Amino acid sequence: MSLEILSTQKSFGGWHKRIRHHSDVLGCDMVFAVYLPPQAAQAGARLPVLYWLSGLTCTDENFMQKAGAQRMAAELGLIIVAPDTSPRGADVPGDPDGAWDFGHGAGFYVNATQAPWSRHYRMYDYVVEELPALIEAAFPASDRRGISGHSMGGHGALVCALRNPGRYRSVSAFAPISNPMQCPWGEKALSRYLGEDRAQWREWDTCALIAQAGERLPLLVDQGEADGFLAEQLKPEALHAAATAAGHPLTLRLQPGYDHSYYFIASFIDDHLRHHARALAG
Amino acid sequence: MSLEILSTQKSFGGWHKRIRHHSDVLGCDMVFAVYLPPQAAQAGARLPVLYWLSGLTCTDENFMQKAGAQRMAAELGLIIVAPDTSPRGADVPGDPDGAWDFGHGAGFYVNATQAPWSRHYRMYDYVVEELPALIEAAFPASDRRGISGHSMGGHGALVCALRNPGRYRSVSAFAPISNPMQCPWGEKALSRYLGEDRAQWREWDTCALIAQAGERLPLLVDQGEADGFLAEQLKPEALHAAATAAGHPLTLRLQPGYDHSYYFIASFIDDHLRHHARALAG
Repeated sequence: MSLEILSTQKSFGGWHKRIRHHSDVLGCDMVFAVYLPPQAAQAGARLPVLYWLSGLTCTDENFMQKAGAQRMAAELGLIIVAPDTSPRGADVPGDPDGAWDFGHGAGFYVNATQAPWSRHYRMYDYVVEELPALIEAAFPASDRRGISGHSMGGHGALVCALRNPGRYRSVSAFAPISNPMQCPWGEKALSRYLGEDRAQWREWDTCALIAQAGERLPLLVDQGEADGFLAEQLKPEALHAAATAAGHPLTLRLQPGYDHSYYFIASFIDDHLRHHARALAG
Repeated sequence: MSLEILSTQKSFGGWHKRIRHHSDVLGCDMVFAVYLPPQAAQAGARLPVLYWLSGLTCTDENFMQKAGAQRMAAELGLIIVAPDTSPRGADVPGDPDGAWDFGHGAGFYVNATQAPWSRHYRMYDYVVEELPALIEAAFPASDRRGISGHSMGGHGALVCALRNPGRYRSVSAFAPISNPMQCPWGEKALSRYLGEDRAQWREWDTCALIAQAGERLPLLVDQGEADGFLAEQLKPEALHAAATAAGHPLTLRLQPGYDHSYYFIASFIDDHLRHHARALAG
C-alpha cells in the first residue's frame, strides 16, 4: 500500500489531506480526501469514520471545499473520507457520447458486469472494502463506520448500508436517487453497467433493498423542495413508501425552498454529523 | 439602477443571490453576490452589512462557496456582500503578459490614474461608494457597514476603512497584503495603476495610512504561519510595527500551521463575523 500525499492543509485545528493511491479493485490510480480532526493527533486515537459519497460530476474536492463540515467534525472527533465518484484515467472508458451522467464522475457506486465497464467500474467494492481497509491501516481510524452522500452519492450511501448489515453503524443522505430503477439517470447507468436484465438492478436500488433489508438502521434523509431534480430523478415519495411498507425507520425531512446544491448540504450538514456521531460514539 | 438576479439559493434559512448590474464607476457590467440572512425577510428590517473583498484571481463566488460564513451570518443577522475583484469584460484591458496578479481578477481596490487602466480600474470607488449605495437602496440593508477581506482583499478592506473615518464601524482581514509598496505583488500593481511616483502609492498602503489615520478603528487580523506568501508578499511584521508606532489598536493573530487557503479562512471566519457583529449592533 503506497500513499502519495498530494497536499495537507490545516483546518479547524485538524488536517485536510488529498491522497493518491493505486486501487487494485478499480485498476487505476485514485485520489481521495480525508479530514482528520484535532483528536487524531492524540496518542492511541482510534476515531470513527464517516464516508461521504459525492454526486454526479464531483471529485473528492466538492464536499471538502463547500459543505462546511470540518467545524463540526472537529468538535465531534469524526474523521471524514471523501472518495472520487468513479475510476479515472486515460485507460478508463467514459461515456461514449461525452455526457456527464455516465462514465467518469458517474460510477454510481455499483460493480459493473458489462464490458467495457466491468474492467474498472467497481466503485461499490472500492468504497465498501478497499478504501476502508486502507483508511483503517493508514490513519488513526477505527472500524466504527458511518456513510452518507449526496444525489448519486446518497443512493450509494443507502445501498452500501442496506447491503451490508453490521458494517456501518449509521447512514444518512442528501437528496438521494432513491429509486434508480425508475428514473432516467438510474436507467441509463444501470442498463449500461449491469445490462438489460432489470432483475439484476434490484441489488442496487434503495427502494428494492429496503423491502428485504437484514438490518433496520435508521435513515436520515434531507431533501430540498425546490430541487430541480426532485420529481424526475430523486423520488423521495418512493423511498417513503418503501420504508413505510417495510417498517424501516426513516426520517425524511422535506426542506422548503432548498435546491440541489452544496448551499443546501451546508445548511443541514451539522444535523447529519451529529446523527452519525451519536451512533458512532464509543 | 437595474439589477439582474442570476440565481437565488436558500442557505441557512436565508438566501444567496448572484446579481449582475452595470457599474457606471467601472464602465462595465459587474456581478456580485449577496447573502441575506433570515432576518432580512422581517418587515422593516434594516440589517448591518459586511463587505467582503476577495483576493487575486477570485470572483464573487469563492467566499460564498468556501468560507462557510452563512451559518454564523444567519445567527447574527448580518448581510454579506461579496463583489468581484476587478472590472471584467472584453473592453477591459487585462495583464499584457496574461499573468494572474494584474488586470482581470487583480484590481487591487485602487483608483487607477494611468492609461489604459484609469478608464475602468476604479475598484476603490466601486467598493466604497457605488456598491453600498446600490445595496442600501435595493436590499433591507442599513448604513452600518463592516469590511473584511483576504490577501489582496485584506489590503483593500484595511485601506477602505483607514481612508474613510466614520464610514465603517468595523474592519478585519485575513492574510492581508499589509505593505504593498514593499512587496512584488504591490509594486507591480501600484506602478502600473498609479505610475512610478511612489509618493502616490502611500494613499494605498495600509502601513503608510495607519501612521496618519483619522480614526483608530480596531483591526482584527489573522495570518497563517504556514502561508507560502507570508514573508515575501504579506509582511504582517510591517503591519505590527506600523500599528505599534501609531498607537493603532491591532489584534494580530498568527495561526500555527495554517496556509493561505479558504480552509484557513473557514477556520476563523466565525471569530471575524462576531467581531463585526459586536461593532455593528444597534
